Amino acid sequence: MAERTSRRQELADAAISTLARAGMRGLTHRAVDEVAGVPTGTCSYYFRTRQALLQATVERLAEADLADLADRPVITEPADIAQVATVAADLVEHWVTDGRERMLARYELSLESTRRPELHAVLVAAGEAYRALARDLLTAVGACDPPSQAPILVAFLDGLVFDHLAGAGALGLTSDELHRRFLDLLYGFTRPLHP
Amino acid sequence: MAERTSRRQELADAAISTLARAGMRGLTHRAVDEVAGVPTGTCSYYFRTRQALLQATVERLAEADLADLADRPVITEPADIAQVATVAADLVEHWVTDGRERMLARYELSLESTRRPELHAVLVAAGEAYRALARDLLTAVGACDPPSQAPILVAFLDGLVFDHLAGAGALGLTSDELHRRFLDLLYGFTRPLHP
Repeated sequence: MAERTSRRQELADAAISTLARAGMRGLTHRAVDEVAGVPTGTCSYYFRTRQALLQATVERLAEADLADLADRPVITEPADIAQVATVAADLVEHWVTDGRERMLARYELSLESTRRPELHAVLVAAGEAYRALARDLLTAVGACDPPSQAPILVAFLDGLVFDHLAGAGALGLTSDELHRRFLDLLYGFTRPLHP
Repeated sequence: MAERTSRRQELADAAISTLARAGMRGLTHRAVDEVAGVPTGTCSYYFRTRQALLQATVERLAEADLADLADRPVITEPADIAQVATVAADLVEHWVTDGRERMLARYELSLESTRRPELHAVLVAAGEAYRALARDLLTAVGACDPPSQAPILVAFLDGLVFDHLAGAGALGLTSDELHRRFLDLLYGFTRPLHP
């Protein structure tokens, strides 16, 4: 049983790489077999349908996210803005380097989910860990409305990563620049009253 | 000649719809013929290769962007933060409603451009109009560093739209909420000094 689980994970990891390299158009059971270096037919045996393969891939992404988050330094309250800006900037740097394939796969799956409601539900659930982290960070820093600001912070992080990986890449993604922009955003989020 | 141009535009528009509905995997010359309601083979006649079709689609998106921007209210300097926040919030609302198909097609093409450098160059050039708008808005509002903040503002807008169309959609995308979050960001961008 453990062997079966690990083969499924291996195939899901290969699907993530395949999506990042060849897109949704290049994702086939056969391509996953090739990337995983397993006999043709293996992926079809474990995941009979395209939907089953896509779902396993999203679930594998979610597992990897949780492992990632467990590795992050814990922010204790109260935290200052500079400290939280560092956490956010580090996350972006991680996603555009070590996390590159996973982020590209996630974007491919997100677009596919506009056509597959079942996939959408799994993706939304998988993203909850990040929205929870964002709420914790914003609460620690004394933001004025963490529940409503957290999805905005996540969208902001996501937009930065998307631009860097697949867009104009126009951001001066030096650590300093990135850190300063998170300071800007967090500063805006903590001011007490809206004019 | 005018007729030829308009047929090319019609096909590029159909490619945008096809991408939004069926993704990169569903985009074929034949599918574009069907969506455009033209005889099979028409799209292949005008765009011999997949690359030619993708490039024409990106160029059509850029044209539509320019037409869109020409319709926006002109912001004159100096503008107050609330006024610019309204412009930004209106842009997001436009993109997730009337602009939905174009934005989804843009995301599909952006991911594809990670595998096609020629396409990437066209997309980056096409995005310049938005970065220029962002610079103008930030300058008008007295932001402290418009050239380096403009791509961040664009990424922020993009992340919000992506989340709404293809992600968790967790944003309370009421006009009021959206407007408040842009106030937050712009407020952060205009504070004179970083601690």
